[in-house]
Amino acid sequence: MENEKIKRIGILTGGGDCPGLNAVIRGVAKPAHDMGLSVLGILDGFEGLVNGKAVELYNKDVSGILATGGTILGSSNKGDPFHWPVEFDGQVKITDKSADALRNYEGWNLDALIAIGGDGTMHIAHQLMQMGMNIIGVPKTIDNDLMATDQTFGHDSAVYVVSEALDRLHTTASAHHRVMVVEVMGRYAGWIALNGGLAGGADIILIPEIPFEWDAIYDKVIERNMMGKRFSIVCVAEGAKPIDGDMVVKATDPKRTDPIQLGGIAELVAKKIEENTKLETRYIVLGHLQRGGSPTPFDRILSTKFGTYAIQLAAKKKFGTMAALKGTNIKSVSIEEAIENQKLVDTSDQAVKTAKSVGVCFGTKKI
Amino acid sequence: MENEKIKRIGILTGGGDCPGLNAVIRGVAKPAHDMGLSVLGILDGFEGLVNGKAVELYNKDVSGILATGGTILGSSNKGDPFHWPVEFDGQVKITDKSADALRNYEGWNLDALIAIGGDGTMHIAHQLMQMGMNIIGVPKTIDNDLMATDQTFGHDSAVYVVSEALDRLHTTASAHHRVMVVEVMGRYAGWIALNGGLAGGADIILIPEIPFEWDAIYDKVIERNMMGKRFSIVCVAEGAKPIDGDMVVKATDPKRTDPIQLGGIAELVAKKIEENTKLETRYIVLGHLQRGGSPTPFDRILSTKFGTYAIQLAAKKKFGTMAALKGTNIKSVSIEEAIENQKLVDTSDQAVKTAKSVGVCFGTKKI
Amino acid sequence: MENEKIKRIGILTGGGDCPGLNAVIRGVAKPAHDMGLSVLGILDGFEGLVNGKAVELYNKDVSGILATGGTILGSSNKGDPFHWPVEFDGQVKITDKSADALRNYEGWNLDALIAIGGDGTMHIAHQLMQMGMNIIGVPKTIDNDLMATDQTFGHDSAVYVVSEALDRLHTTASAHHRVMVVEVMGRYAGWIALNGGLAGGADIILIPEIPFEWDAIYDKVIERNMMGKRFSIVCVAEGAKPIDGDMVVKATDPKRTDPIQLGGIAELVAKKIEENTKLETRYIVLGHLQRGGSPTPFDRILSTKFGTYAIQLAAKKKFGTMAALKGTNIKSVSIEEAIENQKLVDTSDQAVKTAKSVGVCFGTKKI
Amino acid sequence: MENEKIKRIGILTGGGDCPGLNAVIRGVAKPAHDMGLSVLGILDGFEGLVNGKAVELYNKDVSGILATGGTILGSSNKGDPFHWPVEFDGQVKITDKSADALRNYEGWNLDALIAIGGDGTMHIAHQLMQMGMNIIGVPKTIDNDLMATDQTFGHDSAVYVVSEALDRLHTTASAHHRVMVVEVMGRYAGWIALNGGLAGGADIILIPEIPFEWDAIYDKVIERNMMGKRFSIVCVAEGAKPIDGDMVVKATDPKRTDPIQLGGIAELVAKKIEENTKLETRYIVLGHLQRGGSPTPFDRILSTKFGTYAIQLAAKKKFGTMAALKGTNIKSVSIEEAIENQKLVDTSDQAVKTAKSVGVCFGTKKI
Repeated sequence: MENEKIKRIGILTGGGDCPGLNAVIRGVAKPAHDMGLSVLGILDGFEGLVNGKAVELYNKDVSGILATGGTILGSSNKGDPFHWPVEFDGQVKITDKSADALRNYEGWNLDALIAIGGDGTMHIAHQLMQMGMNIIGVPKTIDNDLMATDQTFGHDSAVYVVSEALDRLHTTASAHHRVMVVEVMGRYAGWIALNGGLAGGADIILIPEIPFEWDAIYDKVIERNMMGKRFSIVCVAEGAKPIDGDMVVKATDPKRTDPIQLGGIAELVAKKIEENTKLETRYIVLGHLQRGGSPTPFDRILSTKFGTYAIQLAAKKKFGTMAALKGTNIKSVSIEEAIENQKLVDTSDQAVKTAKSVGVCFGTKKI
Repeated sequence: MENEKIKRIGILTGGGDCPGLNAVIRGVAKPAHDMGLSVLGILDGFEGLVNGKAVELYNKDVSGILATGGTILGSSNKGDPFHWPVEFDGQVKITDKSADALRNYEGWNLDALIAIGGDGTMHIAHQLMQMGMNIIGVPKTIDNDLMATDQTFGHDSAVYVVSEALDRLHTTASAHHRVMVVEVMGRYAGWIALNGGLAGGADIILIPEIPFEWDAIYDKVIERNMMGKRFSIVCVAEGAKPIDGDMVVKATDPKRTDPIQLGGIAELVAKKIEENTKLETRYIVLGHLQRGGSPTPFDRILSTKFGTYAIQLAAKKKFGTMAALKGTNIKSVSIEEAIENQKLVDTSDQAVKTAKSVGVCFGTKKI
Repeated sequence: MENEKIKRIGILTGGGDCPGLNAVIRGVAKPAHDMGLSVLGILDGFEGLVNGKAVELYNKDVSGILATGGTILGSSNKGDPFHWPVEFDGQVKITDKSADALRNYEGWNLDALIAIGGDGTMHIAHQLMQMGMNIIGVPKTIDNDLMATDQTFGHDSAVYVVSEALDRLHTTASAHHRVMVVEVMGRYAGWIALNGGLAGGADIILIPEIPFEWDAIYDKVIERNMMGKRFSIVCVAEGAKPIDGDMVVKATDPKRTDPIQLGGIAELVAKKIEENTKLETRYIVLGHLQRGGSPTPFDRILSTKFGTYAIQLAAKKKFGTMAALKGTNIKSVSIEEAIENQKLVDTSDQAVKTAKSVGVCFGTKKI
Repeated sequence: MENEKIKRIGILTGGGDCPGLNAVIRGVAKPAHDMGLSVLGILDGFEGLVNGKAVELYNKDVSGILATGGTILGSSNKGDPFHWPVEFDGQVKITDKSADALRNYEGWNLDALIAIGGDGTMHIAHQLMQMGMNIIGVPKTIDNDLMATDQTFGHDSAVYVVSEALDRLHTTASAHHRVMVVEVMGRYAGWIALNGGLAGGADIILIPEIPFEWDAIYDKVIERNMMGKRFSIVCVAEGAKPIDGDMVVKATDPKRTDPIQLGGIAELVAKKIEENTKLETRYIVLGHLQRGGSPTPFDRILSTKFGTYAIQLAAKKKFGTMAALKGTNIKSVSIEEAIENQKLVDTSDQAVKTAKSVGVCFGTKKI
């Protein structure tokens, strides 16, 4: 029935935590109820879809959650229905549970599923679409590495945390004539380091897209020191790497087999700077601080816009699409297209040029 | 000499305070010095240009100011060189001091003047251009009411203050079953109220662009009360007005001649809600809290981009232009064009629709 | 049965909002459950006690409320059981409803009632004790005006809000060469103005305990101006008054019968300073911002200590007592004694001397 | 000349960074100038005293620094005049430079030296006193581990940072059903972990004073999980250690010679919890975030009181004493006595009992 209105939608949040998830859920559920739709909250991402865990979401459930961090639905980094780990006799076997997912989708009488998530979530959503589910996407990544949208929600909040940390460390670095190295998120895309570093006045920004030369870093620190600025702040993305080296494997990475040496890139950078400049150097890894807490006003607004737009897309049966920010407006893009294009920092990007203009060193003399 | 490079620029900040001014100044001065330009900081806006008050700006002067509120150059709301009040025998006479401004501009050997300011500043800048000064503009308004740019710096910081205040008032309104009315800036444009209200979860948003009906407000408050939500938050722009009334004249406005009755629109709205719904109602006027303090990371980045872009425009002798945000890029627009088009909230705007979708009442049943 | 253990307690929150109320409730309920006690949450202060409105409080109800503002139990400024307004034929008559309160207390099988509140709440609690109820008090006032305890919870949070506001206003006052007048809470006691002003670097602090002279204020502002400090920050308690004048009656006070002229003391002070010094002056009234929002860590700790101490007092049947901070320890004091002694700022107080030492003017040349 | 007034004082800040240092400096310098004293700011702690680096401090130098982090005088962790490292032929030799320190003290015509610092600083100050210098102390430690004062400045700010971090991590732990381990400062004293953990609602607090048992930790995490609380927050002091183990030696500690294995106690705790409970566990080390940034209002007030009190002690020639908080008053104690008594967390302390009452586990079943 082409013209039949949808009556019931499901909603789930997948992947890592991100400030604004609850604002999206509220943005979906409130107008849905006004349209007469019922809303099913699927718990713990795709895990709930496979295992049939879900709760009805009423207005009272989404009231007062706009400013809260986390997600009332729970999330999970695991749980790909197409690659589902099952334990047999102490051995883990990967099976396909997508049929269970579909059975639940149908059993719950869902007319559409709104999937809020990143890369991984969208890839799974895309496969579920092939099986006949009606999917609307809401892009989620604090990394901001999606070509399809000018900005993703959560990114502004992560940048806020980084910027606030740099502010704090500035005073103490300055009082003690120290180099401070701050590791921020960004395995492949350096947006958090770039924007956080710009906002927090970092002197050196190291990102995965621009492999760095050790000498360029030492020179910058020493040059500042000689100008009487006896402190330097380095903002480094976790995925940054030297031009002649590999990405640092975390000490905690279960895959590593080599003798464990260093916790991460920040520790390595701090160690090398101290050795080569003889200046006292300290490091800090911001880690999950960047994913938690109340979203910034910017993210609350963007999340709310994404949520309300997504439910409209669902009502209009524009399945397979995703809400995206373009300039000052929300538009729709195809999920398929969106997941194909990652947005990385380009050295010709205005943000990079701006940073260069105010004296930021990217660890290379080439740009 | 068309091909001659510029050697010396002036910079001034005009109009009301705005978080990010210092970040712009830093964004201009640091690359200017790298290009070999000297930078003259003109004090207290156009007042300094007329009266010849200025200081050389070196790198050390703009170091560490990225995160600070206010402006190291000082500003002034007065000081239009073309309408300069002079006191003669106890009488104030308006004179034209633009010749003094030009004389100083020339005497200081300026090749260009970067004027950071709002509407008023840009109008004056435009007239000074006619006299032969080379002007580059940087748009400044916490109100965000400029068609030429997707967003102005300072707005995100103002919205942050509003959103944080609404968060605080929510808890106390909820505990005491109260209506809280919060007055925010916005004489003609409602962007701060709209974005701040959206981010802070306001139940009612009143803006100058949408004249409100009293009954619609009372009905919303009562409806919420009947649904068991014994509190409501109203976010009202200072310029909001009832459909059948005039803008409330502030008690402190020197121009008012009538018997003083009320301090502002928030007080009036609070009084009327309490009278008509019998619910305890309180109000607060956020006032200058919205203009002060450290800029948000978003504003620090945007300000820095505007500053570094402006000095490039100057170096390229693109006089008469202004830096503007379009999508994720900074571009240049003509000052003339920019000052002609104010950006007001339109009822068809996505932000308005989003707000409606999550249940916000705009004080009218028409939209 | 002297030796019989208590089995069931009630808890209520009375009076104005105060950050930390929920932390106290949690601090009472968690250990109570561990002791095997049941906890009844009485709603909306004494109103719930008279009208029989209450809910059972389980651990899940107090989980996650440590950091939240407001009170999950609701509160009410009205509701003195001994002076209860009842409407007969459009006329309000004051009646005694204490018998209803007692009947509910007994009907609910309460062994003790923990009353969290200020002055008013403690006076009522004291009278209810005479009727046979077992009361434990927890002192609550953001004003910090209680002799019996070194500090009350909520005060640190209020001071935080004031200090943050002064920080913001400093930058904008400084940029625009302005005087900024900030009105804070404190009708009879000036602690918020004193501590907030000290923390926020106010130049002038006006409190109820030290009637001020207008000339002393003008002189301070002018003296600063002549020293090149072209801005001044005034922090004024709502109850501050000139030495030769009355407390300013709020425009919104229903009791006032005179022609309404000014909104409050801040407006008056701002007006007079501008008239007498010719310096641009602005004012802001912080109002309920001081009562809302998440408590500071200091207040969360103090509230939790007060709560856990109160339930121990109840378990030990030390009825008629109240938790109080003395140095670094919580001790018990008698409610009766506590309500008799208000703690006002004394001119010989160290905080006053400290403020004087760093140049703060109290609006008088006498101290 | 017993009755001669002092005319000139020196001031220095020693040891690690601590929010409030600048507020103390301002609190000393402003009243000093009012008394007609001149103030010499000695740079980089005792290094400046030995090497003769100092600047005159005028009122303009201490204006506007109340709210800033760091110290305008610089500090240094090195620089004990009695154990001064000098390099001869590539070898470091320890020499005694106290004669240089005394020569500078006398050459600068100082009547007294105000030393702001912790343990180490006070020990050195005490030795300098024996040589004839007039010393007044101001105790500084974010660790709060000084018996002589109810609280030290900087501690409240450190607790604020910890509490805010726990708030952020709560939401993300809760959304993802994770255990989060947060390492905070405190090598010997657990006050930051205890107070920060209490304020941030930690489920488990591990401190140096209470050696922990692994099983008690696992049991608590599992117990919470079985009650449906699928996340836990662990707040661990850097000096916490298992009952049967040594303090974890940091990977970066130059003294360690064993094969490097783990970064710190948080990493170890996280690893063991994940292994033993099979629950996803993450950790973060807050590090220098706890030392930087603007002091909280509480610390600004306490610092200002300490500063103004110290200059009074100097004026009264009460040399060898230190400002200390006792209840709500500042009093003086002898430096000698103060440095002898460290204040550690005692299991009978009210804060510990309070934490136990609200369900906090200290990693042992013994208390």
